[in-house]
Amino acid sequence: MKFSFRPTEGAFYELFTRAAQNLVRGTELLNELALPGVDVQSVSDRLTDVEHDSDEITHTLYKKINSTFITPFDREDIYSLGSQLDDVMDHLEAVGNLLYLYGLTELPSLPREMHELVNVLDQQAKITADAMPRLKTMKNLEEYWIEINRLENDGDRAYRMLLVRLFSGEYDALTVLKMKEVADELEAACDAFEHVANTVETITVKES
Amino acid sequence: MKFSFRPTEGAFYELFTRAAQNLVRGTELLNELALPGVDVQSVSDRLTDVEHDSDEITHTLYKKINSTFITPFDREDIYSLGSQLDDVMDHLEAVGNLLYLYGLTELPSLPREMHELVNVLDQQAKITADAMPRLKTMKNLEEYWIEINRLENDGDRAYRMLLVRLFSGEYDALTVLKMKEVADELEAACDAFEHVANTVETITVKES
Amino acid sequence: MKFSFRPTEGAFYELFTRAAQNLVRGTELLNELALPGVDVQSVSDRLTDVEHDSDEITHTLYKKINSTFITPFDREDIYSLGSQLDDVMDHLEAVGNLLYLYGLTELPSLPREMHELVNVLDQQAKITADAMPRLKTMKNLEEYWIEINRLENDGDRAYRMLLVRLFSGEYDALTVLKMKEVADELEAACDAFEHVANTVETITVKES
Repeated sequence: MKFSFRPTEGAFYELFTRAAQNLVRGTELLNELALPGVDVQSVSDRLTDVEHDSDEITHTLYKKINSTFITPFDREDIYSLGSQLDDVMDHLEAVGNLLYLYGLTELPSLPREMHELVNVLDQQAKITADAMPRLKTMKNLEEYWIEINRLENDGDRAYRMLLVRLFSGEYDALTVLKMKEVADELEAACDAFEHVANTVETITVKES
Repeated sequence: MKFSFRPTEGAFYELFTRAAQNLVRGTELLNELALPGVDVQSVSDRLTDVEHDSDEITHTLYKKINSTFITPFDREDIYSLGSQLDDVMDHLEAVGNLLYLYGLTELPSLPREMHELVNVLDQQAKITADAMPRLKTMKNLEEYWIEINRLENDGDRAYRMLLVRLFSGEYDALTVLKMKEVADELEAACDAFEHVANTVETITVKES
Repeated sequence: MKFSFRPTEGAFYELFTRAAQNLVRGTELLNELALPGVDVQSVSDRLTDVEHDSDEITHTLYKKINSTFITPFDREDIYSLGSQLDDVMDHLEAVGNLLYLYGLTELPSLPREMHELVNVLDQQAKITADAMPRLKTMKNLEEYWIEINRLENDGDRAYRMLLVRLFSGEYDALTVLKMKEVADELEAACDAFEHVANTVETITVKES
């Protein structure tokens, strides 16, 4: 294995930024699923493509950790941040896949609270992608993690109201179970964005 | 940001203790929900108040980590312990909120195993609140984490028996789904107490 | 407490290996559940015995961490690896217990995808047991964690297909709920094997 002796920090920030930009692509694809007459299988397939691209970014990041002599911050934290960005993508892909596999988009309409959750994820993705390049200077990151936490609270409320709706008797038991699986993945994605933000906060605390 | 150069350890232990005392208030409120003719909305609202107070304690703790030059133990461990105490509170609040939102307290009675789980949580809360001040000397903590683990095993058993009851055919499918949500939050609270105890154990191992 | 001043690394590797060998015994017992006319209660009880043995191994490991002056790698990582091996066992035991408690083995047959998941776990257990002794030299571990991750992806796919099957209308709602609990434990066991592999990877990265 070839070791690089000069800090090549730039590569790390670029990989984090690319991983976060893929999350924006992911939430945009989820938004497409709400459009009338959309080809659900095609959207689900494109989500899988983005997810594979994210896997490659994570793999490149891990190899870079192992081959770099001086990393911009703790190896373990780089590792955590990479795997947590990857986790968000896994949940976004699962949402698209499950909607397709369970045939839920064939329903007249999905519950409004589901769209609210996708909207929260979309905002979380955008501010995460904006924040990643700022890791370089470690400046102006506090507003990012505060906002992610605020959005995660919004997501929690929307999730709770979604369950109240699902359990209201409006849908049959099997449809409820299917939608519950999708709801759980949406909520897990919200949480996963928060884990990313918590790791950014931890890194900042250590470096301050 | 003003830095304090003398170790002000006392403040950390006090914040951990206050956070754990809020957990005792939380489990006491859950116990109130079992009383006949209780005002469920009022209990749920008071749980939310306690949860907000816990959020403020956690926030104060994080600011204190950042502004303190010498911390009594690793910054990351203080951070973990704070966020894990906060996690317990989130699950306790969720239990109260869901019971209210799903109208479950309107049932003639909740399953006995649900009360058993609340009882386990109540004991976990009390011994956690008792243990937090002992972090100062790092003495007599082993009995605390052994007992928490024992209680968590009790909770696991009660949770498993609760599911057997829920799936027995005694309730309709939607009621089962609602109670399952509450059961999962109760069980997550039990686990979260164990995470707190594991972190205390990790800290003690490091310092020994 | 008596401290040992010479590195007694051997004991740590032996404990990890024994814990992983118990996981092989665990997945073999799950395979027995698929045999016609099997005594489910007896298999469930034997799983509980293996789980208790694993608890003792974990306990011995923790005591060894506390009483050893020089550990072969970071105390916290030894701790994580031990508790993660223990987590796998907990999920394997839960699978056997729930199949018995919910009376699911009385069904004419369990879904094919459930057997696929057990098969994935069986392979994960075997290569984990093979890898543990290699921690001593830190050599040839990469193939292990890559294979575990590959198997975990297989498990994810089987889990997703299992849910599609469960929600297809072939079973009544309560049977679906029971099988879903078992499916979740199977999937959690797959994930837990991956957590073990991730920790092995982290240790290797640190030591490289």
